[in-house]
Amino acid sequence: MSKLDNIRIVLAHTSHPGNIGAAARAMKTMGLSALWLVRPNRFPDRDALSMASGAADIVCDATLVHSVDQALAGTIAAFALTARPREMGPIVLTPREAAREAIDAAGGGPVAFLFGNEESGLRNEDILRCQRIVEIPANPLYSSLNVAAAVQVMAYELRLASAAVGAVAASSGRTRAPAPEKFAPASYAEIEGLFGHFEHALGASGFLDHKNPGKLMDRLRRLFGRATLEREEVNILRGILNNLAVHAAKSGLSDTANHDVNSD
Amino acid sequence: MSKLDNIRIVLAHTSHPGNIGAAARAMKTMGLSALWLVRPNRFPDRDALSMASGAADIVCDATLVHSVDQALAGTIAAFALTARPREMGPIVLTPREAAREAIDAAGGGPVAFLFGNEESGLRNEDILRCQRIVEIPANPLYSSLNVAAAVQVMAYELRLASAAVGAVAASSGRTRAPAPEKFAPASYAEIEGLFGHFEHALGASGFLDHKNPGKLMDRLRRLFGRATLEREEVNILRGILNNLAVHAAKSGLSDTANHDVNSD
Repeated sequence: MSKLDNIRIVLAHTSHPGNIGAAARAMKTMGLSALWLVRPNRFPDRDALSMASGAADIVCDATLVHSVDQALAGTIAAFALTARPREMGPIVLTPREAAREAIDAAGGGPVAFLFGNEESGLRNEDILRCQRIVEIPANPLYSSLNVAAAVQVMAYELRLASAAVGAVAASSGRTRAPAPEKFAPASYAEIEGLFGHFEHALGASGFLDHKNPGKLMDRLRRLFGRATLEREEVNILRGILNNLAVHAAKSGLSDTANHDVNSD
Repeated sequence: MSKLDNIRIVLAHTSHPGNIGAAARAMKTMGLSALWLVRPNRFPDRDALSMASGAADIVCDATLVHSVDQALAGTIAAFALTARPREMGPIVLTPREAAREAIDAAGGGPVAFLFGNEESGLRNEDILRCQRIVEIPANPLYSSLNVAAAVQVMAYELRLASAAVGAVAASSGRTRAPAPEKFAPASYAEIEGLFGHFEHALGASGFLDHKNPGKLMDRLRRLFGRATLEREEVNILRGILNNLAVHAAKSGLSDTANHDVNSD
């Protein structure tokens, strides 16, 4: 199985079905096959099949979901394609850097690349579900790539990175050893579980006002997004949050003390 | 002026006007602007403008010509995009290698990238007008990139190569010196003049049977295409051909002896 099989292309809220087809074609030419669609505007649609040309199979096999959250479920790393610069956001990579990281990670599980709507792009809350931003170098006077064109550039870099890894493995006669279990990356579900736990525990502790949360959760997501959390780190943080919640309950600030680590 | 301004994107015999618009958009996002169209099937056309989105200016400013020969006129290097492997053809480069060569050459004059028809690709005779073939790495089971997607990949690599050259120039505080005049590259017109001269002189000498030419001219094009001729080399070869023709005339094989070096 190729590492490219573990790369998931997620198109969120796509307006024009032709772009879904063109993206599928871009994927297939580069050896990608897993297409996920979050609430496309029109789908299925014959424009998608016509633009897909010889990649209609990828369109037909696409996984339809209702939210970005569902599309990222089960992944161990997620990259958001966006041209909008953001202060303090996740680490920003070039497509080439992102491709290397993604192919590296794809040995351990599914890796997602998230592309937004043609007009409005990705929402901030969707970007914050990703550990990395990918920005395609572009003309500052006109940086608006068509979404299928962006998929083509990213898929092209993924294919090159995958071939480079294959070439290194072939020349050294061995493949890279997987990371030891104690450094295993946290899964998307584990990270989302952590953020849910943060919200609950900080609410219980009175640190977070659920009626007026401000940017607190966003900042936490940015911070841990940049860190690319490992599983054991998530467990440690959740241990701390459990501890916090227990203390908050005891101090009488809240009656919802326990948030079980394995509840998700 | 940026070296990207000297890059000419040539679309030959494009069937679908939407692809012209999508290619224009791909170009503009990467900072390219010179679009040349060889006998497009439908043009102007509103599909071209609609797919161009914010790059309608590039579509409107496109240069319309009747032949690939006209589109390559005035260039000092030409690259053909094709996925079809060809024995003994021009040197085959990856998009990344081609982008570096092209940006390097673009300091001295216009450089063309030639893209063929959606279904039939480029004709052999058009490929042989180029010194290099560019092959985009692709899935061997489905390597058929949409033409605008291929333009996007090539334009992306050109932008990266241009930025890399700019970074080196900025860090070293100087730009690369132009090649001395005696190593100046031959222009497209000079090279075509040479091939015309070959055909004439070899015909005059009886080496080439115009009624049954076989692959002789193709092989010469391949040979000199790989060599990336300089102007002085062209002059030397034409001197030899003049000499040949004069001798052929004297020996009575032909009465069309002289083919003036400056006749084109």
